[in-house]
Parts: sequence; structure tokens; C-alpha cells
Amino acid sequence: MAKTNAGRFFEDYKLGDVIEHAVPRTVAEGERALYHALYPARGALYSSDVFAANCGLDGSPLDDLIAFHVVFGKTVPDVSLNAVANLGYAEGRWHLPVYPGDTLRSVSEVIGLKQNSNGKSGVVYVRTRGLNQNDEVVLDYVRWVMVRKRDLDAPAPETVVPELASAIAAADLIIPEGLDFTNYDFTLAGEPHRWGDYAIGEQIDHVDGVTIEEAEHMLATRLWQNTAKVHFDATNREDGKRLIYGGHVISMARALSFNGLANAQMIVGLNGGAHANPCFSGTTVRAWSEVLDKAETDAPGVGAIRLRMVATTGGDPFTLRGDDGKYLPHVLLDLDYWALMPL
Amino acid sequence: MAKTNAGRFFEDYKLGDVIEHAVPRTVAEGERALYHALYPARGALYSSDVFAANCGLDGSPLDDLIAFHVVFGKTVPDVSLNAVANLGYAEGRWHLPVYPGDTLRSVSEVIGLKQNSNGKSGVVYVRTRGLNQNDEVVLDYVRWVMVRKRDLDAPAPETVVPELASAIAAADLIIPEGLDFTNYDFTLAGEPHRWGDYAIGEQIDHVDGVTIEEAEHMLATRLWQNTAKVHFDATNREDGKRLIYGGHVISMARALSFNGLANAQMIVGLNGGAHANPCFSGTTVRAWSEVLDKAETDAPGVGAIRLRMVATTGGDPFTLRGDDGKYLPHVLLDLDYWALMPL
Amino acid sequence: MAKTNAGRFFEDYKLGDVIEHAVPRTVAEGERALYHALYPARGALYSSDVFAANCGLDGSPLDDLIAFHVVFGKTVPDVSLNAVANLGYAEGRWHLPVYPGDTLRSVSEVIGLKQNSNGKSGVVYVRTRGLNQNDEVVLDYVRWVMVRKRDLDAPAPETVVPELASAIAAADLIIPEGLDFTNYDFTLAGEPHRWGDYAIGEQIDHVDGVTIEEAEHMLATRLWQNTAKVHFDATNREDGKRLIYGGHVISMARALSFNGLANAQMIVGLNGGAHANPCFSGTTVRAWSEVLDKAETDAPGVGAIRLRMVATTGGDPFTLRGDDGKYLPHVLLDLDYWALMPL
Repeated sequence: MAKTNAGRFFEDYKLGDVIEHAVPRTVAEGERALYHALYPARGALYSSDVFAANCGLDGSPLDDLIAFHVVFGKTVPDVSLNAVANLGYAEGRWHLPVYPGDTLRSVSEVIGLKQNSNGKSGVVYVRTRGLNQNDEVVLDYVRWVMVRKRDLDAPAPETVVPELASAIAAADLIIPEGLDFTNYDFTLAGEPHRWGDYAIGEQIDHVDGVTIEEAEHMLATRLWQNTAKVHFDATNREDGKRLIYGGHVISMARALSFNGLANAQMIVGLNGGAHANPCFSGTTVRAWSEVLDKAETDAPGVGAIRLRMVATTGGDPFTLRGDDGKYLPHVLLDLDYWALMPL
Repeated sequence: MAKTNAGRFFEDYKLGDVIEHAVPRTVAEGERALYHALYPARGALYSSDVFAANCGLDGSPLDDLIAFHVVFGKTVPDVSLNAVANLGYAEGRWHLPVYPGDTLRSVSEVIGLKQNSNGKSGVVYVRTRGLNQNDEVVLDYVRWVMVRKRDLDAPAPETVVPELASAIAAADLIIPEGLDFTNYDFTLAGEPHRWGDYAIGEQIDHVDGVTIEEAEHMLATRLWQNTAKVHFDATNREDGKRLIYGGHVISMARALSFNGLANAQMIVGLNGGAHANPCFSGTTVRAWSEVLDKAETDAPGVGAIRLRMVATTGGDPFTLRGDDGKYLPHVLLDLDYWALMPL
Repeated sequence: MAKTNAGRFFEDYKLGDVIEHAVPRTVAEGERALYHALYPARGALYSSDVFAANCGLDGSPLDDLIAFHVVFGKTVPDVSLNAVANLGYAEGRWHLPVYPGDTLRSVSEVIGLKQNSNGKSGVVYVRTRGLNQNDEVVLDYVRWVMVRKRDLDAPAPETVVPELASAIAAADLIIPEGLDFTNYDFTLAGEPHRWGDYAIGEQIDHVDGVTIEEAEHMLATRLWQNTAKVHFDATNREDGKRLIYGGHVISMARALSFNGLANAQMIVGLNGGAHANPCFSGTTVRAWSEVLDKAETDAPGVGAIRLRMVATTGGDPFTLRGDDGKYLPHVLLDLDYWALMPL
């Protein structure tokens, strides 16, 4: 019996399968420091224990995207090792902040299957939950990927495509217990703009850019124990390029968006997302955002803001799709998320 | 209203302005480990809790230059985003060691202004203090930078050039409470040379060199939340080069100076410094030092040594300036600091 | 007197010399996070406090190779600064797990000397012990290196070549106190293969590959405070290449071997090892293993497995030496070690 993991193929997934992903991970101050080294992250709530305590939390949590990447990384060997494409995200919610010392693991349920008409591959929908050492959910989200078939003669499963919300309803967002922005320090946070200063439809060019190196995206991707070989092995593609993990682009764009969105402190919802074009080393990543929606919350001083975050390689900001409806070549990422912001 | 930060221009500074810089930062074991990964740092006091406790401290502090870079990094968005040049440092003192778990923030006061005769820019002098979570000063220093004007017609401010000491007087150096080198372990520290073994005027070639990569200096500069785009964005300059943060060169040279100055353990004063020439990826950084002064202190077994530390790209060691008085092309850095050394 | 360390030459070693190596080091969560960023390490015992506690330990130790690299790194300035070649390892044993907060130092004894017939160099054998803050041995091993003579006229020492075991006897392996694999969670560990599933002589191709960048191996090598200039200074060799620290290849191969050996959790013995060919940046490192031996232990549910781990640059897996008995050009490393695995 071969002892190495060749990954699952499309016919290996059954509707309702629950996959316990391997290698739980304790995250701590080291992961936080590396996040600050890898991305120009400046969110005060994730940088300072004192600032976070002043917002009602038990010290500074690890960045919400650290939680996402760690939980996501664990699913790769079971979900996307043979994936042709990462097609989308939906219904993502952060349930609990992750603090240094927490141990995370991931569990996915297969909630949809649809073989492609070419018979060579299919789409697998999974709902993934990240759990901490107390078996509490810290994060959950739906992801769907296109996976190759091993055996082209394997029968197609019954097609089940889950109904997915186009966005998390504001009322369903989970606000961390104790969060209170009534004493929020805008000076220390870095910008004066509060929830009321943002208008639906407003667009922000985040101005700055970062040119990405091979060593950096590999350090990041390994840190999340993401094993997809396309990110690490230069002999894997004919052109000798290593594909940059889409999550690296998400974190880079999010960090760049500090300049204009410094007070969009906590990510609480992931409504959708597409990796529009592949990203390679040497690219200078830029970002712009658009305010899609706003909502009040029950927490004192806390508003919710729904943002489209677009990462690009340059090009005109605020351009997204061509006349054919397809993403323009300079668009790397189109992400739709909810964040919490002081009123 | 544009929500992004375009930085301040010369006419935006007023004498006596106090700027509270954004994004406080909790530093911990992760920053320490990264410092050891980024620089060949071997100072025993900053490497071992046991060694530091044997010197009378509450465990190993974070490297003095971690404190400096974090405090400095916070000032960049307010002081040097539109700087043409970082002109100098003076009157820098370390007041308190920084321990894992401490939270640092920065406050600067404008103490001098002088418009250049060309009317296009001016020199801004600031005194920056780094404060911890107890509002204690951990570090302060004066820096002056040349900043562009936004509006060339803005009136010139009254010229005020602060009087700055050419060096911190030895009597004004602050020795960390409890520091005691009477049981200092020279074997574990790595070299036998004590304070008495160094003579004023003595020069030391630190022999070793490190070739710098893009990924490394960007990891370092982000770690200190320094946002200056010249360090990150390869599209920013016509030649496609990223300028290496001067503080990366300071830390590299300081770490290289272990070889010959292993017992110059703690930096307590920054008398002056010039970034003589820009540094780019691919450069092999080397260093030499010269003993400028020596002084006794009140702490048991502790002497102070004033050092010139010169980082170079090679060339003859101990050469600094040409006949025209200008720094030679191979000189990157000329730094003048006080360190503490066992008697 | 020159204050810089030129390293020891062959004639500087005397049989029985005990060398206390400099710069003790406190290791913590930061080193753990960096290890996960530098290598695709996925061993559950070293990733999760919860998993490790379930195996009877006081939380997750730092990777056994972190302990090895830190202890090894301290010996470099005294043992291998003028080494022509790192010839071999033997009789390595891990005595105690290393936990975050532990402080490590190294002591070596010269146990053998043999001048080469050319009179220009000689072989030095040292037994190195790594000690923690309680002066307990955490690791010991024998290493021998070829070192240049400074003075070719220095008399040859009496030749003493220590008798070294070709492998640690299974009965001499030290099992960490409390280790208990009876409740081992194979799902969370990532693979179902237990000790009984491996046969002596079995070979495993670990499939994956990682292409190495300059920044990465330098970050790693500095992290272990290894000062050998060949790893850092691109001007040191005529071809401008930086030689990658052999330990970087060891850790990379060990991490890649997760795929097929996920349950070979703890390294407890180092029987031997050769760095067969030099490794440079841009190389895609791959690995294969062979089961050399198996043994039972006294600890509940714990078996020992002796493995040959071979790192390569590609080429046919399971090929090692040519007809001339020499390592094939694509072989980087041939390491022989004992690991602990659930029964």
C-alpha cells in the first residue's frame, strides 16, 4: 500500500461526508510576529494588547486572517490537492477571536457535488468549521473547488448544489463578546474616519503597493501548513513559476487597505470571493475597496461595514470587469467581507 | 474627502506641535525570534534569559534596536512619508529595557524648522519618545529630515534650529536598574575582551559579511511597521530598485560587530548617525568600529564605551571620507553610539 | 591583539579539550513559528499542545531539529569555522524534549584527532552536549570535521580515532518521560500507518518538493546562530554562490517526509549522516526514506523505527550511490536516525 497521500479525486467525495482534517495547530506570539513581517499589517486591535483591552477584549487576538489561513490550510490535503481551481467562498463567519495559545483544527462537510459536463472533473462544495481546543467554532465558511476525477468511468453522483446566501445578513454577524468601541482611540488607530463617514458606493484607492518575493509567499503558505505543491515546487509547472497562494494576496490586500480603512478593525463575515487571476513572484500588489453596505449592531459603538476588496497588479483603480463580464487581467482578487468599525 | 494618508509636507509642521503616532505595538518572543533570523545577532544578554538574569535583569530584554525600530517605524507616516532624506540623529537615550509583552507607542514634538533656500523643501527636527504600556519613556532621540513642500507658495516658518549635543555625556547615560556585570561570564558571552582591553582610537574590522536579499529587508521593515513605500514597491523608482531601510543596515552592522565587540552588550546612547549611501538588495554588508570614548558608570562592573560603527559594501576598512570630506561610495552608515561593557 | 575570532585550526585542538561554546539561547514560541514558516513541518506532536498533551507530554515541545540546530550552531565558531568539510555524525541521542522558555547551551569535548597524510589538515572528532538551564543534557552527538592547519609545520598529534557505534542500540534510546501513544489520534496526525505497518527494507518516496530561496536558508541558519560565512557572504566563493547549511537540508527533508511518515513523530537517535553534495539556492529538494530497523520500547504504545532519510535534487528515487561507491550527484543528504512511532 502506498503510504503517501495522493489526495482525493472527485469520485472520492460523497454528499454528507464529514472530513476531520489533520494536524491541529497551536498558534501564538510567533505567528503574530510573522504576520507583521509578511504583511504591512497595522490594525491597532491586532497590534496592541492595550488597544484591544480598551475595546473590551482580553488582549489582542491573532489577526482574523491568521485564523482563516490556518483553518483553510488544514483542508488542503483533503479538499484541494487535486483541485483545478478554487471557485468561490460563501457564508463565512468568524465566531470567536483566536488568542495566543489557542489550538485550531478543521472539519469539513461535503454539502454539494456536481460533475462537469466534460466528465473529467466536478465541483465539490464543503462547509468547513475551524474549532479551538474547547471544541468551540471559531470560524466557518463554504468553499467550492473544481476537482479532477481519477477514474473517468466513475459514475457521476447525483447533482446537489447548495443554496448559498449572496451575503451574510447583518443580523447574523457574530460580534465578539465584550466588544465596545465607545472609548475607541482614533488617534492611536491611525485614522479619524468612523462608520458614519463612509457612504455606500464609496470607493477608496489604497495607494500603496508591495512587490512580492518567492521567499515571502512560501514562508507565509508554509506557516499555514498549506501543502499545495504549486506554491513551492518550481518544477511543477512548465514555465517554472510558483503560483502564489490566494490567501497571501488576501492578506496583502487587507493590510494595504489600512490606508483608508484603518478603522475597519475586525473581519466578521466573508460573503464571497474570487481569485480572478493567478499571482506570481515579482508582482507589485495594490488594492482598492468599495463600500457595499452598512449596518448597525447591538454592540456599543460598533457598526458593521460590508466591503469589496479588490487586489490588482496595477491598472486603473476601480475597474474590475471587461465588457465581456470577465475580470480584467490586472485583477487578482475580488473579495466581499464584513468588518466592524467604530460608530 | 480623501481617506488615505498622503503624509505631511513641510508647511504642515509647526514648532511645538506634538504628534501622537498611531498603532501601538505589543512586542514579544516572536519579534525576538525574527530578529535572530534576520540578523546574525549573538549578544548573550539578548539571547539568553539565564545570562541576562545573571546580569541582574528580569530575563532577556528585546534587542535595543528592536525598541528603536518599533518606535521609529511609528513616526514614518507622520514624519518621513514625504521626506527627501533622513539627515541625522542626536541625543538618543535608552531609558528602560523592553521585555516580551510590553506595548510601545511613539510621540514626537517638532523642535526645529528651517526652510531650504530653494523654497521647495525644508528641514524638520523632531524629538521622538517611545513609551510603554505604563507611559514610561523607554527611548528618546532627535531626528531631522528634509521634507518637501506641497505648496511652494506657503510662507517659510521662522527658522529654529535646535542646539543638539554632539554626544550624550557619559554622566547622562541611563543604566538599567539592577544591571551588574560583576559575575559576567565571558566564556558564554563569546569573547574575553573587557572594557579595560579597549583603547580610545582603537579600530576593529569585524571581518564577516552578509549579502542582503529583497525578502529579508522587507520582512524586517514591515516587522517594525515602517510604511515608507520606497522599501516595498519596485515600481516606485525608475530603476526598479527598492531602497533598503537604513535601520536594516544599522541592525546588520551591529550584529556583525559581535565579532570583536561581543561584550558591548547594551546600547544606551545614540550620539549621531548618517546613512552615507543608499543600500540595495544584493549588497554584501560589512562593518568596522572605532572606539571614540570610554567612561565609568555607577553600576557594579559596568563600563561605558562610545563607538563609531561604520557599515560598508566592502572597500578598505577604516576609510570613511574622501579628500572632499564626503563619505566614500562604499560607506553605507556612520553611527556613533554608547554601549555598556563589563569592566 | 586582534579582537576578532579567526576560529581554531587543526593544531589548536588537544585530545580531551572541553570547549564551552558561547551564546546560550532561550528558545520559545517565536522559534516554533519560524520553523513552521521555513519548513513544511506538519508533525502533530510539534504543532499542537493538545495533541502533545494527549500523548502524555507537557504541551508541544519544540521540534527535535530546532534543538539540534541550536546546539550545533553554537559549536560552529569553535569547531567548524575553518572546516573544509563536515564529515559525519554518530551516536546522537535526544535526552529531553525542549519546551518554549528553555535556555540551551553547548559543550564539546575533543575525542579524536588524526592529521591527514598531506600535512595540511586533519580530522577533529568532538562529542557535543546540549544542556538546558538546569544543566540537564537535552541532546548529545559526535561530529567529525576536517579542519585546516594554520601552521603546516606544527607537529602532528598522536592519532586517536574514537570507536563509534554504527547505530544507537534500540535499548539505549531515551524515551521522553510520560510518552504514551495508546490514545494516539491517527486522524489528527494525518496518516493511518502505524509502526506495525512498516517493514524493514520498505522504501517511501515522499513525492513533494520545495525550491529553496537564498532568503530562506539564511533566515534559518541565522536563527540557529550559525556563523559560518559560506552561508551568508556571496563574495566568499569565486562563483558567487552561498552554500546552504546542511541542517537546512536535513529539516527540509524531514518535513517533506511527513508525506508517508506522518507518525514518525519524535527523533530520538542520530546514527549517522553525510552531506553528500553541496546544496545551493534554486534547488528543488525532494526526499525518500528507507526503513532500516524496528524495535519495541518500554513506553506504552510506542515503537522505534530506524530510518534512512535521503534528500535529493530529483533523479530516480531510491538511488544513492554509483558503481564507484560514491554518492550520485543528485543526492544531497544521507541521514540515519531513530524515530518514535505509535504501535
